[in-house]
Amino acid sequence: MTLYLIIGAALIAVLYGILTRASLMKASTGNERMNEIAGAIQEGAKAYLNKQYKTIAIVGVVVTILLALLFQNLIAPVGFVIGAVLSGIAGYVGMLVSVQANVRTTEASRTSLGAGLNIAFKAGAITGMLVAGFALLGLAVYYMILTGPMNADARGVIDGLVSLSLGASLISVFARLGGGIFTKGADVGGDLVGKIEAGIPEDDPRNPATIADNVGDNVGDCAGMAADLFETYVVTIAATMILGSILFPTAIDLILYPMAIGGACIITSIIGTFFVKLGKGSTNVMGALYKGLIATGVLSIAAIAAVTHFQIGFDTIEASRTSVGENTTVAFTGFALFLCGIVGLVITGLIVMITEYYTGTNYRPVRSVAEASESGHGTNVIAGLAVSMEATAIPALIIVTGIIVTFSLAGLYGIAIAVTSMLGVAGMIVALDAFGPVTDNAGGIAEMAQLDPEVRKTTDTLDAVGNTTKAVTKGYAIGSAGLGALVLFAAYYQDILYFSTQADSKLFGVVVDFSLTNPYVIVGLFIGGLLPYLFGAWAMQSVGRAATAIVEEVRRQFKSDPGIMAGTSRPDYARAVDLLTGAAIKEMIKPSLLPILAPIVLYFAIYLIAGTEQALASLGAMLMGVIVTGLFLALSMTAGGGAWDNAKKYIEDGNHGGKGSEAHKASITGDTVGDPYKDTAGPAVNPMIKITNIIALLLLAVIAH
Amino acid sequence: MTLYLIIGAALIAVLYGILTRASLMKASTGNERMNEIAGAIQEGAKAYLNKQYKTIAIVGVVVTILLALLFQNLIAPVGFVIGAVLSGIAGYVGMLVSVQANVRTTEASRTSLGAGLNIAFKAGAITGMLVAGFALLGLAVYYMILTGPMNADARGVIDGLVSLSLGASLISVFARLGGGIFTKGADVGGDLVGKIEAGIPEDDPRNPATIADNVGDNVGDCAGMAADLFETYVVTIAATMILGSILFPTAIDLILYPMAIGGACIITSIIGTFFVKLGKGSTNVMGALYKGLIATGVLSIAAIAAVTHFQIGFDTIEASRTSVGENTTVAFTGFALFLCGIVGLVITGLIVMITEYYTGTNYRPVRSVAEASESGHGTNVIAGLAVSMEATAIPALIIVTGIIVTFSLAGLYGIAIAVTSMLGVAGMIVALDAFGPVTDNAGGIAEMAQLDPEVRKTTDTLDAVGNTTKAVTKGYAIGSAGLGALVLFAAYYQDILYFSTQADSKLFGVVVDFSLTNPYVIVGLFIGGLLPYLFGAWAMQSVGRAATAIVEEVRRQFKSDPGIMAGTSRPDYARAVDLLTGAAIKEMIKPSLLPILAPIVLYFAIYLIAGTEQALASLGAMLMGVIVTGLFLALSMTAGGGAWDNAKKYIEDGNHGGKGSEAHKASITGDTVGDPYKDTAGPAVNPMIKITNIIALLLLAVIAH
Repeated sequence: MTLYLIIGAALIAVLYGILTRASLMKASTGNERMNEIAGAIQEGAKAYLNKQYKTIAIVGVVVTILLALLFQNLIAPVGFVIGAVLSGIAGYVGMLVSVQANVRTTEASRTSLGAGLNIAFKAGAITGMLVAGFALLGLAVYYMILTGPMNADARGVIDGLVSLSLGASLISVFARLGGGIFTKGADVGGDLVGKIEAGIPEDDPRNPATIADNVGDNVGDCAGMAADLFETYVVTIAATMILGSILFPTAIDLILYPMAIGGACIITSIIGTFFVKLGKGSTNVMGALYKGLIATGVLSIAAIAAVTHFQIGFDTIEASRTSVGENTTVAFTGFALFLCGIVGLVITGLIVMITEYYTGTNYRPVRSVAEASESGHGTNVIAGLAVSMEATAIPALIIVTGIIVTFSLAGLYGIAIAVTSMLGVAGMIVALDAFGPVTDNAGGIAEMAQLDPEVRKTTDTLDAVGNTTKAVTKGYAIGSAGLGALVLFAAYYQDILYFSTQADSKLFGVVVDFSLTNPYVIVGLFIGGLLPYLFGAWAMQSVGRAATAIVEEVRRQFKSDPGIMAGTSRPDYARAVDLLTGAAIKEMIKPSLLPILAPIVLYFAIYLIAGTEQALASLGAMLMGVIVTGLFLALSMTAGGGAWDNAKKYIEDGNHGGKGSEAHKASITGDTVGDPYKDTAGPAVNPMIKITNIIALLLLAVIAH
Repeated sequence: MTLYLIIGAALIAVLYGILTRASLMKASTGNERMNEIAGAIQEGAKAYLNKQYKTIAIVGVVVTILLALLFQNLIAPVGFVIGAVLSGIAGYVGMLVSVQANVRTTEASRTSLGAGLNIAFKAGAITGMLVAGFALLGLAVYYMILTGPMNADARGVIDGLVSLSLGASLISVFARLGGGIFTKGADVGGDLVGKIEAGIPEDDPRNPATIADNVGDNVGDCAGMAADLFETYVVTIAATMILGSILFPTAIDLILYPMAIGGACIITSIIGTFFVKLGKGSTNVMGALYKGLIATGVLSIAAIAAVTHFQIGFDTIEASRTSVGENTTVAFTGFALFLCGIVGLVITGLIVMITEYYTGTNYRPVRSVAEASESGHGTNVIAGLAVSMEATAIPALIIVTGIIVTFSLAGLYGIAIAVTSMLGVAGMIVALDAFGPVTDNAGGIAEMAQLDPEVRKTTDTLDAVGNTTKAVTKGYAIGSAGLGALVLFAAYYQDILYFSTQADSKLFGVVVDFSLTNPYVIVGLFIGGLLPYLFGAWAMQSVGRAATAIVEEVRRQFKSDPGIMAGTSRPDYARAVDLLTGAAIKEMIKPSLLPILAPIVLYFAIYLIAGTEQALASLGAMLMGVIVTGLFLALSMTAGGGAWDNAKKYIEDGNHGGKGSEAHKASITGDTVGDPYKDTAGPAVNPMIKITNIIALLLLAVIAH
C-alpha cells in the first residue's frame, strides 16, 4: 500500500510537469527576431546534449557490460540503466523546457515583472518536479520489482539500489563537468574578448560567443544541475534504504519510510509552487520565491508528521539484527525520527540563509569584495578568496551540529532520515534554481532582439534574483551531498559488517580497523583528500582551455569579417557552439574518470601491500577524506564565486564608481575567476564525492561475491 | 655520553654561527647612501620585532602563569619559557644577521656574482645553524636536567618536552602571522600604489613603502621562517622522544636516538655549507646551492648509519611495555630504523624537486600561468589557482608512500624517525631559505642607492634563485610539519592509552573509539577541517587591510608633498613602517588564538554533550582534520603563490610581450594574489597545525592529572 502511494506521489509530480508545460507552451513567443534567437539557442543546446549523451552512452554501455559480467545477473545492469536513463531524461526535458520558456519569459516581461516571474518560475518548477518525480519513481518501481521475488534485505535488492545510484552518478558527474566546462568556457571566453577587448556589452549580438553563452546556461545550470540533484536524491534515499535494510532487516516499514517522506514532500513542494506570486505592484521577487519555499517547509513538517504516524508510529521502535555473531537490538522512537526529519529541514533553511549572507549584495562579505576592487584587480581577488574560505565555517558547524543532534536522537539512521528530509524538498529547491538560467536567457534574448531597454531592466531584476537562488541551491546541494556521503559511508561499513558474518562471503570473518590510529586509515584520508583538489584543478584547466579556444575563434571572426563589429553582417554563432561542444566533451573525460578509478586503484594497491582488511580500511578512509576536503573546497568555491559575481553587480548598481570605473574592471576579473569556481569545479565536486562512495559500495559487493 | 655529544654538536652549530658572523662583519658595507638605507631597514626591523616580542611576551606571561597553576610545578612553565626564549633568540639573531648582510651583499655584488653569493649564503647559513643548534640545545639540555632526578619515561619529562614545544609553537604562530602580515601588507600595498598607480618601478626610493617592504623581508621571510622551522624541529624531535618513551619506556638508547640523529645531521649541514661555491665564470647559482644540499644529504646518510651503529646497533631491538593490562613486545631492527632515516631524506629530496617543478620558470605549470596572462587578469588567476590545486597531488602521494614504507619497516616509531631525519637537515634548508631575503634586500638597496644597473642585475640573479629556494623550503616545511603532526597525533593517542592504565589518573580505564564509524570522530574531522580555512581567511583579510592602510598612507604622502614624486624631497619611510607595525601586531592576535582555543572549546563542548571518551575521540579526530585540510591548503597556497610570482618573472624576462605588456599587467595581478597566499596564510598554517596538536597534548595531561 505505502509503495503504491509513493509511486502515486511520484506520478503526480510527473503529471504536474506535463500539465504545467502545456500551460507554459500557450504563452506567446514574441516577434520573429526573438524566435530566431531562441531557435538558435534551442538548436545549440539540443546539439550539445545529444553529443554529450552519445559520449556518456559509450561509457554507459561499457559499465553495463562490466556489471553484467561481475554480477552474473540482470539486477545490477538493469538498475544501472534505469538510473542513467531517468537522470538523462530529467536533464534533457529540463533543458527543453528551459529553452522554450526563455523567449516566453522575455515576451511576458514586456507586460510586467509578475508575468515574467510567472513564466520563468513555472519552467523551473517543471524541471524541479520532474527531477524529484522521476527519481522517486525509479527508486520505488525498481524496489517493487526487486522485492517481488526477494526479501527486502536480500543482497539483490541492495545491489539493485546501488546500481541505480551508480547510473544516476555517472550521468551526473559527466553532465556537471561537461555542462560546466561548456557554459563557463563560453562565459569567460566571451567576456574576455567581448567586454574587455572589443568593449561591447554582455549579450551584444555582434559577439559570436553570445549564443554559446546562452546555450551554456541551459546545458550547464539547468541540465547539469538537474542531473546533480537527481543523483543526490536517488543516492541519498537509496543509501538510507540500504542502511535501513542492513540495520533492521525485518522492519519493512522502516525501509519504506524514507521513500514515504520523499513522496509526501513532493506533494508539499507542488503546493508550495502555488505560493510563488508577486503581489500587485510589488518588485520583491526574492520574497515571492521565499514564500513558496517557506510554505513548502512548513507543510513538509506536517506531512512528515503524518507519514511518521501512519508508516511507523511515534512510539518506540525496536529492531534486532544479528551482527558479528551478536544479537543487537536498536531502539528509538518514531517521534525521534520525526524530529530528525525536522532537523533536516532546519539545516536546509539555515544553509539557505548563510549562503545568502555570503553571496548577497546587502551584507559585509560581498561589500568587502566590492570595496577591495577600488585598490585593484589583485585586492579584489584576495578579498574574494578570503570570503570563499571564510564561508565554509558556518555551514560546517551547521552540518556538525546536525550530525550530533540526529545521532543522539536515533543513531546513524537518524542522520540518514535528516538528509532524506533535506532531499525531500529538492523539487522546490530545483524549481528555484532552474528559474535562474531561464531569466538569464530571457535577458540575453531581449538584448539581442534589441527590445525596449525597459524589458531588459525587468529581466535583469529577475536575473539578479536568479544569481542568488543559484548560489543558495549550490550551498544546499553541497551540504546535502556531504551529509548524503556520510550515509553512504555508513552503508559501506555496515555492509562490511554484514559480509563478515556471512559464511559464503569472501569477506567472512574480516575485521576492519577504521581507527585513526591505523596508518592505512591515514593513507586513505590523504589520498581521498587529494582527489577533490586534483579534480578541481583539472576542471579549472579545462575551462581555461575552452575559454582560450573561444577567444581565438572570436578574434578570428572579428578579423576575417570587419562587418561583424560594424553590425552589418551576422557572426557565425554556430561555429562557436560547435567548438565548445567538442571542447567540453573532450575535456570532461579525464576528470570524470578520476573518482571512478581512484577507489579501485587504491583498493588493489593496498591489497597488494597489506591485504584485504587494510585495503578495506584505506578505501573507507578515502571516502571520508573525499568528503572532508571535498565539502570545504566545494563550499568555498561556490560561495566565493557567488560573492565575486554579486560584488560586480553591486558596483554596476552605481557603487564604488559604477560601470566603467577601475573598480568595475577589477570586479570583472573577480567575476571571471569566480565563474569556473562556482559553476564548474565547485558543483562538480558533489557528484565526484558520491560516485567515489558508490564505486566503493559496488567494489565491496563484487569482492564479497 | 650520547647526551654530551649531542650538546656538543649543538654548540658547534652555535659556534659556527658566531665565527661566520665575525667573518661576515669584516666585509665592506659600501658607500654612505647604502649605509643610510641599510640603517633605516635595520631600525625598522628591530622596531617591529621588539614590538612583536613585547606583545607575545604578554601572552607568554599569561601562559606561563596558567601552566604553573595547572601543573603545580616548575617543569611546565620553565620548559615553556626555554622554548619560547630560544625560538625568539633564533629569530631575532637571524633578522640581525640578515639586515647586516644585505648591504654587504650589495657591495660584494659590485665585485662579482660569486662574491655576492658568498656573503648572502653565509648570512643564511648563520641563521640556519642557529635555528638547528638552539633547537637541539634546548631539547638536550632540558632533557638532561629533567632526567637528572627522574626516569626517562616519567610524566614530568614528557610534560617538560611538551611545554618546551608549546613555547616554540607560540612564538612561531605569532611570528609567522605577524611577520607575514607585515611583509605582504608592505609588498601588496606598495606595489598597488607604486607600480600600478604611480607607474614607478619596484624599490624606487620615491615610494614611501619601499623601506617597509625591505623590513618585511627580514621580519617575515627571515625571522618568521626561522621561528617556524625552529618549532617544527623542536616539536618533531620532542614528539618522537615522547612516542619513544611511551612505546619503549625502558630503552633510553632509543629515546636519545632522534636527538643523536639531529646532532649528527647538524655537523653534516655545516660541512655542506662549504660545498656552496660558484665555479669561476659560472652563473649557475642554483647549482652551487644544490651542491651544498646534496653534499649534506649524502653525508647525512653516512652519519645516520654511524649514529644507528653506535647508538642502537643494526640488529633486532626488542622493547616491551605494559599497556591496557597486556604486555606488548615491539621488535624491529636498527637497520630498519636506519632505512626510515633514509626515507626521510629521500622525501626531502623529492619534495624539493616537485616544488621546483611547480614553481620554476622552466616547466609547464609556471609557463601555463604566463601563457594564460595573455588573455587577461582573470585567466591568469584561474590558471594559477588550477596550478595551486594540482600541486598538492604529488607531495601528498610522496607523504603517503613515506608513511606506508616507514610504517612497514618499523611501525609508528619508523614514521617518527623518518620525520626526524627530514628535520635533521633543517639547518641546511634554512640556510637556503634565509639567503632569499638577504638578496632581495640587496637588490632593493642597489636600486635605492642608484648604483650601477649591473649591480642590480647581479643581485637580481641571486634574487630569482632566492624565490625558488623560498618556495622549495616552504614545501619542505609543510611536508615535514604534516608528518610531524602525525607523530604528535600518535603521541596523543599513545598518551591516552598510557593514562588509561594508570590507576591514579582521572582517565583510568577510558576506552576511546577513534574509528571513522564513530560520529564524534566525524564531528572532530569536520571541525578540524574548517580551522585552516577560517585561519587562512582571516590571514588573507589581515593582509588586505594592512595593504589598504599602506595604499592610503602612500597616496596621502604623494598628495601632501608633490616633491616626493619629483624626487626633490624624501618620503617619510618611518611612518609606513610604524603604520604596518601597528597593523601587523593588531591583526595577528585573532587568527593566532583560533588554533589555541579551538581544541579546548571542542573538548569541553563534546564533554558536556557526550562525556569524556567521546570528547577525547572528537579532539583526536580534530587533530587529524586539521592535518588533512591544512596540508592541502598550505601546499596549494605556497605552490600557487610561487607559480604566480615566477610567471611574472618569466614574462619580465621578455616572454609573452615582456615588461609593460598587457600580459605583464595580468601577471602582476596574479603575483599580488599569490603574495598573501604564499607568504602569509600558507606558511602560517604550519605552526597552526602543530599548536593545535600541542594544546591537545597539554589538555590531556591537565585532564589526566
